[in-house]
Order: sequence, then C-alpha cells, then structure tokens
Amino acid sequence: MKRREFLKAASVGVVGSAAVAAPAIAQSAPTVRWRMASSFPKTLDLLYGAGEVLSKAVAELTDGKFQIQVFAAGEIVPGLQALDATQNNVVEICHTAAYYYVGKNPAWALGTHIPFGLNTRQQNAWAYHGEGKDLLAEFFRKAGVVGLPAGNTGCQMGGWFRKELKSVEDLKGLKFRMSGLGGQIIAKLGGVPQQIGPADIYPALERGTIDAAEFSGPHDDERLGLFRVAPFYYYPGWWDGTSMEHFFINNDQWEKLPKAYQAALTTAAGLVNVDTVARYDVLNPPALRRLVEKGTQLRPFPQEMVAAAYKAAMELYSDLSKTNPDFKKLYDSMRKFQLESNPWYQASEYSYDSVMLRNVKG
Amino acid sequence: MKRREFLKAASVGVVGSAAVAAPAIAQSAPTVRWRMASSFPKTLDLLYGAGEVLSKAVAELTDGKFQIQVFAAGEIVPGLQALDATQNNVVEICHTAAYYYVGKNPAWALGTHIPFGLNTRQQNAWAYHGEGKDLLAEFFRKAGVVGLPAGNTGCQMGGWFRKELKSVEDLKGLKFRMSGLGGQIIAKLGGVPQQIGPADIYPALERGTIDAAEFSGPHDDERLGLFRVAPFYYYPGWWDGTSMEHFFINNDQWEKLPKAYQAALTTAAGLVNVDTVARYDVLNPPALRRLVEKGTQLRPFPQEMVAAAYKAAMELYSDLSKTNPDFKKLYDSMRKFQLESNPWYQASEYSYDSVMLRNVKG
Repeated sequence: MKRREFLKAASVGVVGSAAVAAPAIAQSAPTVRWRMASSFPKTLDLLYGAGEVLSKAVAELTDGKFQIQVFAAGEIVPGLQALDATQNNVVEICHTAAYYYVGKNPAWALGTHIPFGLNTRQQNAWAYHGEGKDLLAEFFRKAGVVGLPAGNTGCQMGGWFRKELKSVEDLKGLKFRMSGLGGQIIAKLGGVPQQIGPADIYPALERGTIDAAEFSGPHDDERLGLFRVAPFYYYPGWWDGTSMEHFFINNDQWEKLPKAYQAALTTAAGLVNVDTVARYDVLNPPALRRLVEKGTQLRPFPQEMVAAAYKAAMELYSDLSKTNPDFKKLYDSMRKFQLESNPWYQASEYSYDSVMLRNVKG
Repeated sequence: MKRREFLKAASVGVVGSAAVAAPAIAQSAPTVRWRMASSFPKTLDLLYGAGEVLSKAVAELTDGKFQIQVFAAGEIVPGLQALDATQNNVVEICHTAAYYYVGKNPAWALGTHIPFGLNTRQQNAWAYHGEGKDLLAEFFRKAGVVGLPAGNTGCQMGGWFRKELKSVEDLKGLKFRMSGLGGQIIAKLGGVPQQIGPADIYPALERGTIDAAEFSGPHDDERLGLFRVAPFYYYPGWWDGTSMEHFFINNDQWEKLPKAYQAALTTAAGLVNVDTVARYDVLNPPALRRLVEKGTQLRPFPQEMVAAAYKAAMELYSDLSKTNPDFKKLYDSMRKFQLESNPWYQASEYSYDSVMLRNVKG
C-alpha cells in the first residue's frame, strides 16, 4: 500500500470510531472505568478522601477518560478485605494500609510501619529511593498487586486510656484496641490486644468492654468521639511513628493500561502522598487544641514503658526474622536505613525542631 | 443544523487534521514545547534533576505531546534570573527558589523559607492546604507567574567555617557567604554577608576571601568540595530549616494550556515535591558519614549564638512588617500557623523522633 493510501485508510478508521464515540478523543486514550475499594469509611474524611483526590487527578489528566469510582469500606467489601478484593479482581484498585494484612504475612507491615520503625520522611525515602522501593515492589508483585505509596497520617498518637498509666505494670490485663504488630508487643507486656473496627471502638470503650484504644491522631480521633469516654490521651504513638497508605492495583489490570494511564496513576499517587500529609498537618493542630479544651488530658508514656516496649519489639522482630524470610529481607533493609539515617536526621531536622520548639511557643 | 449533520461536519474536521498531522492524537492534545530555565547547575544533580523529573512525568502523562526541555543555570539566563526570564516570557517555566528574589521584594522569601520559619512538613502544610496556598498564589499572580511547590532539600546545614566558633563575638567581621534574609541577620550580629554563586564558593573559601559559607546539606556540599578548605561543619541551618523550591510558570502561558496539561504540571509537581525530598533523605546520610570520615568536624552552633540570631530575626521581621504589606501578610499567616502547629508537632513527630534517636544509634 502506498503511503497516501495508507494514510487515507488509517484516517477512515479513526473517523469511524471518532465520529460515533467521541470526536475529540484519541485512539490511544480509551475509556477506562475502575472501581476502588477503600478501607476507610467516609467519616474518616482525609483517609477516604485520599482516594477521591487520586480519582479527580486521574480524570483531569486523561480528559475524563480514565474514571475511578471510590467505594467506602463496606460498600463492596469490608474495609479490611480491600486488598483481597483487588487480588481477586473484584475491584481493580484499592486504598488501604499494608499493615492491615499482617494476618496473611507479618511482612506486609513493613509497607506501612512497624513499631519503632521509620518516621514519615524516612519511610518515604526508603520506599521511593531506598532499597525499600524494589523490595516492596517484589513483595507486592508476588501477592498479585502493584503498590503505590498513597498518603500518610504522619506520626499518630498513642491512644485513649480510661485510666492514667503509671508504670509497665498498668498494662497487665489491659484490654487495648490495637491493630498490627503493636498488638503482639502489648501482649508481651501483659496487655490484651483487641481487634475492633473503627465504627465499634466508641461503644466498646464507653461500655468498658475495652480499657484503651488507639486509632490515629487528633483529627481522626475527634471524629470518632473517643475523648468523650476516655480522658487520657497518650503520646507518642511508638507503634505508628508513621502510617504510609498504599494504592494497590491488580497486576493484570495494571498491565492492560496504556502507558500514559499508568503514568497518571503513579504521578497522581505522588501528589496524594504529599497532599494527604499536608491536610493532616493543617487539621491536627486545631483538633488537638479543641480536645484539650474539652478536657482531654495529654500525657507522655512513662519512659520505662517505652523502653520495655522497645525491647519487646526487638525480640519480636528477631523471632519473626528467624522464621519468615520475607519479613527478614524487608526488616533488615529498613533497619539498616534507619541506622544510617538517624545521625543525619539528628543533626538536621531534629536539631532545627529543637531550636524552634524551644523558642516558638503558642 | 441537525444533530446528525453536525456530527458529520465535526467528524470531517477531525479527519482533516488527524490524517495529516498525527492520526492517533486528539485535537484536545496539541503539541506543546516549552523551555525551563533552572537556577541550578547540573553538578547539583538533585536540584537540577527535579526539573528533569517534572519534564519526564509530563511527557509520559501526555503521550509525549507536552515537551519541556530543561536548561541549566547559565544556558539561557544566569541561575538567579530564572524568575525574570519567566516573567518576561523568555522561557515559559523555571525551576528556582523564591527566596533568591528577596532583592525584588523580601516577601518572596516566604515562598521558600525565612530563618526560624517552618520546617519542611509545616511548609508543605501551609503552602498546600493552609492560608499560604491562596496568599502565595495571589502574590505570585501579581508578579505574573503561577507557582507550584517543586521539591525541597529538607533542613540544611549551618555551613562551613575555617575556624571554630566559640561565641557570638566570633561572628564580628566574619565574611560569610549567605543568601536571602539570613544575611541581614548575620549583619545585625556583626558579620559581613557575601553574595557568591555556587561555582565561586570553593575558590573564595580556599583563598580566604571569605571565612565561611553555607550552601545546602551534605550531598550538595560534598559535590562543591567545601570540606577540603573549611574543616568545621555547623548545624542546624536555622536560616534554612526547610527550602521549598518552585516551578514558576508565566501567567499567559499557563492560561493558554489545555486543562489536562495544567493538570499534568500540577500533579507532576506534587510527585517532584515528595520525590526530591526522598532523594535527599537517601543521599544525605551517607554523604555526611563520608564527610566525617574525611576529617570534617561536626559542631552545633553555640546556643547563645542561636538565641542572638533568633532575636535579631524577630527584629528584622518586625521592621519589614512595618514597611512592606506583602511581607506582613505572608509573615503573619506563616507565624500564626507555626504557633498553632508546634504543640502538635512536639507531641507527635518530635516526641517520636526523640524516642528513636535515643534508642537507635548507628
């Protein structure tokens, strides 16, 4: 076929579909409609909202051709089954925290945070440009998904307690709502970790079915109303020194996407990551002030309790590393980065923050 | 015209251009070629590289239709005239730090950082979702540009000194390479601030034309070789507690872009922002270790010197606020956010970092 004829034939093909379907849209930009299962209810506006931010950005980037509809926890599957639904192709994408899936394999926790792990800056560094990038990608790929970091609450609080904590002894028998590996550490210290979904924390704490509950930080916790039934609010959340969420995408669905749509997801997830932290950092400070005004009593954990928890955590990680090669590989890399990073962090960010917190007080 | 006839006529229009120009490309995705003036030389691989990261992401998002070519400092205009070149439409976009332009108006500094201002997390919060978002957009718009946050070095170091600092007295007459408002504070303390471009710092420090120089952090500073001619490396960089870069885009060029291309810039800039910090956080720790191994002596600034600098900074901001309404508006908002944010920051990030730096040592 001569070039002129080929062009004519090709153009006819373009006309045919363009005229019927969408005149201004290219063949390389097909209409794609996905469903996202969020692990979060709409009441947690920033966590649930991160899915909406991605959806909006992806639609704008593709002139509305790539549409992702976000479903709150429970609308398609329960919140803690968002990953399963993605693996099984019930949905193409989910928004969740990897550490919700420690029941499948404790190594999932390293995608989000483990107690006494990296802070938010360090977790981003390790996951975007450190060894964590390839190691996590490989671990996720084996599980049938592509993972994109997708927002973060920043360091969380240590939770709500009905009674004040004086020493490690006060953890004995304490029924404490806590998820992930933190629960195993609390158990080592004599506590009784409880797995309870966000919506059920308030009534359990009110009735005294549990004695304490951790969830997130001031903005999220205020929305759950926990301050009404437990006056003591402890810090820092050593089991949630950061909390990196992920978008997980079914491997096969990812492969089917045009390159530009893969780029739309990857790039928009980057925006979501910085955007979500910024939202939390704007909304947490006034929420904390309101909570204190309403009678919440802020308390630091007793230092000996933190030290005991740290020791228990190191024992747990040592044990897990002996039997779980996935965990060992991710943990060793994370720990190496932490040891390398801390001296620089101390000289720079921590040292600057020390100056500022000493000088600037509200 | 009846609907069917309209569709037919419209489709003919699409055919005409599609067949000739680019069969698979939509009318809504025109070819756009822009030039970006970077303020940074290629030796500063992460700062210069942030422009490349944006360029690559935007090309991927638009199937290669929106091309941005990055030019290093000096290739089109000198590094510190990148903003001017954008305002004058010599280039459509630049990558720079707003505080390079305090000579135009000290208020530009608030886009990047002022001494004793916000840390990186807080600056992002204020600029993405705090009052800073609208205030900065208005200030930039009046200057003829749209500004998108675009990477950050994180907290910088306090610089390289040929002699050890014992007290504030040691600043008297000290010839110190320093840019932005920090120079005015050093001058209040008796120092002699010097404006010197990155490439000329090393020879000036070697010959003793200057006594000290600040530039960035370990990764960037190592590349400039400053450790060879000044043994004392001080922290923290109280004049650069964060350093938010921006992409500035000529207002008229921005308005001419299709919405999807505006979205490509905005979204990709978000990725650049988190990505650049992650790169620094991966590369600074080993750079600091190498510097120390080569004989660099790490020193914290004497506390009384930091206190004197803080006092001088507050005086400077008070004076500027009296005569410069742009500065006052941005400064008051930033300061209010800082005062609100610090108590939460202390309970969460700082408290967690304190635990981790105490327990995890390399």
